[in-house]
Amino acid sequence: MSTPGPVAPTGDALAAVAPLSLDAVVLDPNGHLGGWQQRSAELSLPHCIDNLESSGALGNLRHVAGRGEQPFTGMWFADSDVYKTLEAAAWTGGAGALRGFVDDTVELLGAAQDSDGYLNSWYQLDHPADRWRDLRWGHELYCAGHLIQAAVAADRTGANGKLIEIATRFADLLVERFGPDGQDGICGHPEIETALVELYRQTGRRAYLDLAGRMIDLRGHRLLDSKNQAADIADRGFGLQYFQDHEPVRVATAATGHAVRQLYLEAGVVDVAVETGDAELLAASERIWDDLFATKTYLTGAHGSRHRDEAIGDAYELPSDRAYAETCAAIASFHWNWRLLLATGRHRYADEMERVLYNAIAVSTAVDGRHFFYSNPLQLRAGHDGSDEDAPSQRLSWYRCSCCPPNLARLLASLPGYLATTDPSGVQLHLYASATVRTSTAVLHVRTDYPWDGRIAITVDSAASEPWTLALRVPAWCADAFATIDGEPVEVDVEAGYLRLHRAWPASSTIVLELAMPVRLIAPHPRVDALRGCVALARGPLVYCVEQVDAGTGVVLDDIRLDPTEAPTGVVRDDLLDVPVAIAARAVVMDDQAPSPIYSGWQSTTPSGRPIELTAIPYYRWANREPGAMRVWLPVAVADVTKRSPS
Amino acid sequence: MSTPGPVAPTGDALAAVAPLSLDAVVLDPNGHLGGWQQRSAELSLPHCIDNLESSGALGNLRHVAGRGEQPFTGMWFADSDVYKTLEAAAWTGGAGALRGFVDDTVELLGAAQDSDGYLNSWYQLDHPADRWRDLRWGHELYCAGHLIQAAVAADRTGANGKLIEIATRFADLLVERFGPDGQDGICGHPEIETALVELYRQTGRRAYLDLAGRMIDLRGHRLLDSKNQAADIADRGFGLQYFQDHEPVRVATAATGHAVRQLYLEAGVVDVAVETGDAELLAASERIWDDLFATKTYLTGAHGSRHRDEAIGDAYELPSDRAYAETCAAIASFHWNWRLLLATGRHRYADEMERVLYNAIAVSTAVDGRHFFYSNPLQLRAGHDGSDEDAPSQRLSWYRCSCCPPNLARLLASLPGYLATTDPSGVQLHLYASATVRTSTAVLHVRTDYPWDGRIAITVDSAASEPWTLALRVPAWCADAFATIDGEPVEVDVEAGYLRLHRAWPASSTIVLELAMPVRLIAPHPRVDALRGCVALARGPLVYCVEQVDAGTGVVLDDIRLDPTEAPTGVVRDDLLDVPVAIAARAVVMDDQAPSPIYSGWQSTTPSGRPIELTAIPYYRWANREPGAMRVWLPVAVADVTKRSPS
Repeated sequence: MSTPGPVAPTGDALAAVAPLSLDAVVLDPNGHLGGWQQRSAELSLPHCIDNLESSGALGNLRHVAGRGEQPFTGMWFADSDVYKTLEAAAWTGGAGALRGFVDDTVELLGAAQDSDGYLNSWYQLDHPADRWRDLRWGHELYCAGHLIQAAVAADRTGANGKLIEIATRFADLLVERFGPDGQDGICGHPEIETALVELYRQTGRRAYLDLAGRMIDLRGHRLLDSKNQAADIADRGFGLQYFQDHEPVRVATAATGHAVRQLYLEAGVVDVAVETGDAELLAASERIWDDLFATKTYLTGAHGSRHRDEAIGDAYELPSDRAYAETCAAIASFHWNWRLLLATGRHRYADEMERVLYNAIAVSTAVDGRHFFYSNPLQLRAGHDGSDEDAPSQRLSWYRCSCCPPNLARLLASLPGYLATTDPSGVQLHLYASATVRTSTAVLHVRTDYPWDGRIAITVDSAASEPWTLALRVPAWCADAFATIDGEPVEVDVEAGYLRLHRAWPASSTIVLELAMPVRLIAPHPRVDALRGCVALARGPLVYCVEQVDAGTGVVLDDIRLDPTEAPTGVVRDDLLDVPVAIAARAVVMDDQAPSPIYSGWQSTTPSGRPIELTAIPYYRWANREPGAMRVWLPVAVADVTKRSPS
Repeated sequence: MSTPGPVAPTGDALAAVAPLSLDAVVLDPNGHLGGWQQRSAELSLPHCIDNLESSGALGNLRHVAGRGEQPFTGMWFADSDVYKTLEAAAWTGGAGALRGFVDDTVELLGAAQDSDGYLNSWYQLDHPADRWRDLRWGHELYCAGHLIQAAVAADRTGANGKLIEIATRFADLLVERFGPDGQDGICGHPEIETALVELYRQTGRRAYLDLAGRMIDLRGHRLLDSKNQAADIADRGFGLQYFQDHEPVRVATAATGHAVRQLYLEAGVVDVAVETGDAELLAASERIWDDLFATKTYLTGAHGSRHRDEAIGDAYELPSDRAYAETCAAIASFHWNWRLLLATGRHRYADEMERVLYNAIAVSTAVDGRHFFYSNPLQLRAGHDGSDEDAPSQRLSWYRCSCCPPNLARLLASLPGYLATTDPSGVQLHLYASATVRTSTAVLHVRTDYPWDGRIAITVDSAASEPWTLALRVPAWCADAFATIDGEPVEVDVEAGYLRLHRAWPASSTIVLELAMPVRLIAPHPRVDALRGCVALARGPLVYCVEQVDAGTGVVLDDIRLDPTEAPTGVVRDDLLDVPVAIAARAVVMDDQAPSPIYSGWQSTTPSGRPIELTAIPYYRWANREPGAMRVWLPVAVADVTKRSPS
């Protein structure tokens, strides 16, 4: 009950609700989230550690430390893979087999660090004269940020006490170089901002918070214009929007540019806002949120519509096939929404955490825990040209730029920290999973088959004798919620997204919350050109999809038209991966459309064809059987625009 | 009557119809195509020449020649911009003000060329040890190809007699290095293949043709795998499909990978096939055509659906907003279709030449002749994130990679060569424009306001006294054609896309062909997700679009629903750029849809709203007034899928 998790606001922070310590929540490994956390720890994290070796990322650092001769290998920011993996190991406590990895790697980093605190193998090995000369593309501050995050995790959990020394040495160098008496500088890829605030929280040294705030306020003043860079290792023709450097953070109203950059930046913006009590800055971040979540978010909670510059794209530009929907952006969205939830207590942020976790984040990892998507499309066609590494037809074991797998590992290792919060009124449950939640107010035993079943049973133990409020989130997707306390129905009066139960809780009181989970047919905004005439299937927090392997070889997925007049239903299955609930829906398969001309004269027709029963599976489990086409959005069998005559 | 144009098949070539010499056709500068050609010569070509100077492309070569010290500037294949501009100047005959540019540049190239024939300023200046070590990305053979094309043009037109010596010296080096006794090598970017065949045609030296054929047959055997390259200046995570090196040319069935690479390759494939009489190879190219034009072609004739790797994309992956539709790919399609037309005489190739010329190629250039699109989207939203150079909101004056403007200049300079062909039966007219066409059979005077009006009047002069056939293409878009000869109606019996009029032609016979040009409503193939529920407007060969400036500020283009039950009509205008015919259509503007949630419950509704009259302009003239949104494809006001309840 004493290890703060990621994001540990100080007592002075502007905060509506407070996080629990990391060890306050123990997920049941037999539950959905607990099982996922366990698979990540047992399969994904060791896979990442193996790949740090085989990708050359550790070899780069050994070379710097004089313990090897490997030429620099991998992306110029490959050090960050090491740091994120270290952070993941630290959040697990660095116990058992991980102890050696953590200690050895920290020792290596200490040996590789320059005497002035600098640490970045790409610059140290091959480009010593270019230090800090290309803040636009160099990723030096980005890598420093991930080092700091790892160090904070290691220090908080006690996994390692030395890494924080390495990180603060580097951070002190940053304060000297980029602080108020130094250079005006910001990083082309945000990350350092949130990291510095976390380091401030861990060390109490105000200079780190001030530097984070300074960098946020310097953003948007064209410091990253190539004209303002002494060196430029890459010019890919992207403008300042890519870096969110086109407009000051306090006045920007649109989410734009590189998705991960925008989202990492916002995490830092909220961190600075809450620690400095800067309501204007917090409002600026919520304004970006309003824009992003109203017009630029995939149904899965993912962001990024463009492959070319990994960018968010325009409002309503949300193609399913070319969804970039980078795994790291989904993780960043989870991090940002968590910070906004802590700052405001608003349910919409918890709703988005749930959506992105169960869909955009979950889909990235294969059942085997060792294959990953970098981008997470919502559609794949038969015969897909997946020759571009970022758009493969199946998950890959590792990537040239493999930022996502270790990012997943650090999120999953810290997952219990995100389930619940407290405030003076009591305890708030935001995410539902079988778990034990220990707070100073009470111990809660949560039992549920969520997300497959909407029944959540919570037993209250060791509760304070005073009345307090147990707040249970009722997700925005849920139209009908029911609740009982010790078997007695209670009125479900949802207030701002939460069922708030205020009373003195006798020992072993049991609350049962039932969130009705009918299959839902979802329609897109009429401005989303890519989805016109389509619906999607969802149940509970899960988005579903149709996969070729279930449709059978005779059916072209793109020739299917869903019959929306017959309500699709959930179907219990025990033969489908680890998925207990599929969806059955009625549809027609049109005659093979391949011979039709690509453009022809217009007429309005209602599609018809052979009736079939469709099976949809949860989106996050697609591409775990044989390769094939997939669709989240299905055209409906209503009047459509089709051919009449050659044209 | 003696200057062959681009593509001059030898007497032995497998050819259905034969091109005319370049000076056999004179376009009327008051006509549509003639005016375009003139604007290109007077505005665009001088602009390109200016930019060769300001971009540093000429400075690179001067440095190689010891006449300057400019560090290498621009893309590593910047030499090709010089060659394409030279080719454009050569096709104009290199007369007048161009004489100095051509002669000076050729002299410079001679001075820059190494004694062994090698010429490539990027390698010569900074990477002499890496010659031929990265065929995957190095573009050495690509640049050599454009040098050869320029030399062929200069030699054919007599613009300059020295350049062919420089080119053949380089080509001889290529034969030595990559010929049957040399290295197995192909270029990451095709172009050398078609260039070598043209050089063979110009010089009669069989070794050049053989080398082109060898390179085509070596393709698809993974020579471009990075493992097979001695050096690798870039690894962007693209697979072998990007280079069309995943499958041998003779067995490939799908158009795939980088669009310009695929299309340039196919031009070379047809060139080799016809010169070697290789019917199998020709059939392979037509198979690629079948795939590309049935499933992967924009309504404008453009190709390339992806920005990330400038790739063709999957079948039916044709987003309007993210259409890459590179100008160079459109030019390449024109070149390839011309070669296929010569080889086969099939009208479908002439139809595609017309479509791509009037739409995808024409749209690239601004009215001022000095601003260009690199990519040519079919939709732009208000508030577009155009910070990526390849997706600007307006045409740019020049690009970091400015391959397109000089490519346009060389096409427009040679445009007259593509209007007509001959065969033993007589003369074929493929493209309609006011022009004089001189053949050994007859002189034809063509008068028309095409593409605004479908009336084409052709006066036959100096005709052979024997009967011969005048074949007039009836475009696939035309459902009703009428014709008279000297005022007498003739039966329009369209045979394989041509009205074939066989007779002895008395002097001054006048044929009038009338191609009816009602406004057409075009529907997409039902598998094109990006266009579901939409129609496009076209008239004659021109695709139309709706632009914000015509809709007025109160109307959000994306909230417009076309009423397809009221036929849109052509409207004569004299106040709209240089566009004499706009289209008027009935539509409704729905209430502002911005406040709607991005995802919600489903119901089927018919959109309703305020009726308006829409003005559509030819697509190729958009973005010539104030910046704003644009749409080619318009949703129709039939049943749609919209919101019912929060979800």
